[in-house]
Amino acid sequence: MERQILKPTPISGFPEWLPAEKLVEQRFLDRIRATFEAYGFTPIETAAAERTEVLTAKGGLEKEIYALSRLAAGEGEEAETGLALHFDLTVPTARYVAQNYGHLTFPFRRYQMQKVWRGERPQAGRFREFYQCDIDVIGDGQLSIATDAEIPAIIYDLFRELAIGDFVIRISNRKILSGYLTHLGCPDGAIHAVLGTVDKIEKIGASKVVAEIEALGALAPAALDKLMALIATKRSNEELISHLYSVSGNERFTLGVDELAEVTEAVAALGVPDSHLEIDLTIVRGLDYYTGTIYETRLVEHPEIGSICSGGRYDDLASHFIDKPLPGVGISIGLTRLLSSLFKAGIVQASAQSPAPVLVTTLERERTGDYLKLARYLREGGIKTEVFLEPKKLGQQLKYADKKGFRFALIAGGTEFDAGTVKLKNLASGQELTVAVGQMVHVLHQKLAQE
Amino acid sequence: MERQILKPTPISGFPEWLPAEKLVEQRFLDRIRATFEAYGFTPIETAAAERTEVLTAKGGLEKEIYALSRLAAGEGEEAETGLALHFDLTVPTARYVAQNYGHLTFPFRRYQMQKVWRGERPQAGRFREFYQCDIDVIGDGQLSIATDAEIPAIIYDLFRELAIGDFVIRISNRKILSGYLTHLGCPDGAIHAVLGTVDKIEKIGASKVVAEIEALGALAPAALDKLMALIATKRSNEELISHLYSVSGNERFTLGVDELAEVTEAVAALGVPDSHLEIDLTIVRGLDYYTGTIYETRLVEHPEIGSICSGGRYDDLASHFIDKPLPGVGISIGLTRLLSSLFKAGIVQASAQSPAPVLVTTLERERTGDYLKLARYLREGGIKTEVFLEPKKLGQQLKYADKKGFRFALIAGGTEFDAGTVKLKNLASGQELTVAVGQMVHVLHQKLAQE
Repeated sequence: MERQILKPTPISGFPEWLPAEKLVEQRFLDRIRATFEAYGFTPIETAAAERTEVLTAKGGLEKEIYALSRLAAGEGEEAETGLALHFDLTVPTARYVAQNYGHLTFPFRRYQMQKVWRGERPQAGRFREFYQCDIDVIGDGQLSIATDAEIPAIIYDLFRELAIGDFVIRISNRKILSGYLTHLGCPDGAIHAVLGTVDKIEKIGASKVVAEIEALGALAPAALDKLMALIATKRSNEELISHLYSVSGNERFTLGVDELAEVTEAVAALGVPDSHLEIDLTIVRGLDYYTGTIYETRLVEHPEIGSICSGGRYDDLASHFIDKPLPGVGISIGLTRLLSSLFKAGIVQASAQSPAPVLVTTLERERTGDYLKLARYLREGGIKTEVFLEPKKLGQQLKYADKKGFRFALIAGGTEFDAGTVKLKNLASGQELTVAVGQMVHVLHQKLAQE
Repeated sequence: MERQILKPTPISGFPEWLPAEKLVEQRFLDRIRATFEAYGFTPIETAAAERTEVLTAKGGLEKEIYALSRLAAGEGEEAETGLALHFDLTVPTARYVAQNYGHLTFPFRRYQMQKVWRGERPQAGRFREFYQCDIDVIGDGQLSIATDAEIPAIIYDLFRELAIGDFVIRISNRKILSGYLTHLGCPDGAIHAVLGTVDKIEKIGASKVVAEIEALGALAPAALDKLMALIATKRSNEELISHLYSVSGNERFTLGVDELAEVTEAVAALGVPDSHLEIDLTIVRGLDYYTGTIYETRLVEHPEIGSICSGGRYDDLASHFIDKPLPGVGISIGLTRLLSSLFKAGIVQASAQSPAPVLVTTLERERTGDYLKLARYLREGGIKTEVFLEPKKLGQQLKYADKKGFRFALIAGGTEFDAGTVKLKNLASGQELTVAVGQMVHVLHQKLAQE
C-alpha cells in the first residue's frame, strides 16, 4: 500500500522557531522571569480558553477571537463549546482575580508569560499566535503610587541584562495632559482625539500636530500655544518637573505632576540612571483604561521597532467581573514580536542548537558504558552533556559537534581509558588538552567560564 | 448607569492553580527542564494550532479535537480557519521534524513542554487542557539502541530530584512478548488482544489473564502455560535476563532479549540502581506505534496514580508527513494530571505565595526611597525581594508577610537608619536580628541556606 504523504507547510501568523532560535527565546523567557521574580512577582497561568462572554464583556473584538468547537460531536452532543481563546492576558487576569478574590493576598503581584491568539486575517508580519509577558500589581481598593516606581526599575534591570542595545524608558502621567486640556478649555469629548494627535508628534512633527488639533477645533489658539509650549520643548527630567510646578493647571493636572515627581524620585532610588528614563508628556498609550503613570520603552538605535515594553496605571482592573475597585499598574512585553524584530535587525543571533556545551564522542562501541559514565560524571558536576551514540567515525562526530554548536568535545580511546584521562577538544580553537578524569569537571567549568 | 457584573466561574476540565500551587508547578517545570537539558535535549515549541488534516492524518480522533473559527468574520471572509488545537505533542513534533527536516541535525534530541487540549465532554477528573512534558531522540534512518538506556537515567534523575516518594521504572521490550507469541503459534491478528490482556495482569491477576486468553482461543494450552511461566514468575533483572537467554524463541524474540540486555547494562552505567529499575515483561503501553523498548514509572506508595512517566521506542515518527524513516525513543509526563494527583494525595503541599523570601516593610512614608534602596541592594545580592508600599501598620504588614509565606521581614525605622542597620525578622521563629546594611545580603544568604 502506497502511503499518502501530507507535506507540511508553515501556517501564516503562527511562528515557530528552529532549535537555535528557540534557545534564544528560552533565554529571554528565563531572564524576564528572573527579573519579575526578583521584585516578588508570583506566577499565574490562566487557561487558554475563556467563556466567550468573558472575552467580549468589553465588546468589539469578535473578529479577533478564535472560538473553539469540537471537530465532531457524539450523538446528542453539542459541537459548540461556548469557549474561545484569550486574545491578551489582561482580560484573563481580571477574570482570575475576580474569581479567586477571596483566595488572593493584596496587593497581588503577579506575572504571566503565555501565548495569546488573535484571529487576524493571514498577512505578512501579523502574528496570530504570540507570547506576552505581563506583570501587574493589583491593589484591593487602593494601591500606593510608589508602586509605579518599581516598573521602570524592572524594565531597566531586564533590558540591561538582555543586552540588546541602548534603550530609554519614557514615562508620563495621563492626568497631566488630560487635566491641562480641561484647564485650557478643551471639551471632555475632544480630549481623547487631541491626545491621540499629540501621541503622533514624533512621527509627524509639531507643526502637523498643531494643524490637526486646529482642525479638531477643540482648543482656542492661545490654548493651543500653551499646550505646544508644554509638550514640544525638550527639557531634562528635573527641569521639566520644576517647569510643570510653575505651570498653572487644575487639580487633576497638579495631582498628575505630584505623582510624576514622586515616581521619578523613587525610580532614582531604585538605581535607574537619568540617562535611561525620559519624562515625555507626549506619550499616551493606546489603551483607554490607563489613568495615571504610563510607560514606553524604545531601543535608541532601532526606533523603527517601536515600544518594546509598555504599560501604565489603571483605576479598575476587573469592573466587568467583580463589584470591587481593583486599581493596578502593569506592563507587557510582546516577546514574539520583539524577538522577531531582533533577529531581523541582526541584534540577536541564534547560534548553538543545544543547551549543552559538551559532547562526549564515542570511539569504541564495546565501551559504551564507559562513555555513558563519563557523561554521568559531567552531569553530576553540573555540566550539561550529550553523548554521541551512533556508530560514526570521529570526524563525522566532530562535524556533528560543530554543526550543533557544542563548545567542547570529549574524546577518549584505549590510551586515555588506560591512563584514566580524557581529551578535551575546544571546538572553536581546535586545541586539545588531556586531563585526568578526576579533573575534567573542574577544568571544563574553568574553560566554560573563561569564554 | 448600573454596570452589569459577569460573575466568573471555573470551566470544567481547564484547571487553574492558585499562586502557591502555580509556584509548585513552576518548580516542577524547572526541574523537568533542567534534567532534560542535562542530557543535551534542546527545546522546541510548536504552534498550539495545526492544520486539521495534520491532526487527523492518523484518523479517529475528531471528537477530541477543538477546531478554531473566528467568532465573527468580516464581509467576504471565512469564519472557518482549517486549524485546530493539538491534542498531544507527538503529532506536532512529527510534523515539525518533517517540515524542518533540512534544518535539523540528527539525531535530533528535543524536549517540548506545552499545554495540549482534548475536546472531552465536561466530566469530573477529565482534563480538557493540560501540560505535557515530552522528550524524544529522533534518528535519521537509524538510532543506536544505547539511546534507549538514557531514558531510564533521565527518569531516575528527575524523580529523585522531585522527591515525591519512592518510585520504580519498569522496562520491557515489545519484541520479546510479540516474538514469543508468534513463536508459540499465536496468529498475528490475535497478538494485540493477547498483549492487551497481559497488560492487565497486575489489576486482574494471573488466573483471570489465563481465562481471558483461553477465551480468545489464540494459544494452545501448552503454549499458554509457557507464556504464563515466562511472565508470571517474579525474577530479579539479572535472573530474568539469563532466563530469557535460556528460553527458545524466534529471531524477533532473541533480538528483543539482546536489546533489553544491552539497554539494562547501559542503564546501570548511567547510575540507575537496580532498586529503581524493574524488567517487567507484562507492561505493554497503549500506543500501537512502540516497537522496542517500553517504559513505565510508578510511585511505590501510590500505585493508584498509575504510570507517571511512560514511553518507548518506535520505528517511524513521521511516516504521514515525510518519506523518510525516522526511528526514535521518547517519554511523556502528563504534568497537570501528576500534580493534581500529588496535591490530592497530600504528597506535595503548596505553601508560599511568593517566589521571594524577603519582604521589606516600610515604617515611614518619607523614607520610601530608602526602603526601595534596601530592596535594590538585596536584589543586587541575588535575593528576591518585595517591598510593602501600602500605608499600613507594621503589624498588618507582618500579617501580610505571614500569609504570603515570606521567610524574613526586613524592618527599619529611624533608629536603624541612623545606625546604618536593619532588623531581620525570621517569620517562622519570630526571632529578630540586627545587622549592618553592608552585612545584610551575606547574613540573609546564610540564613536562607540553613533552613
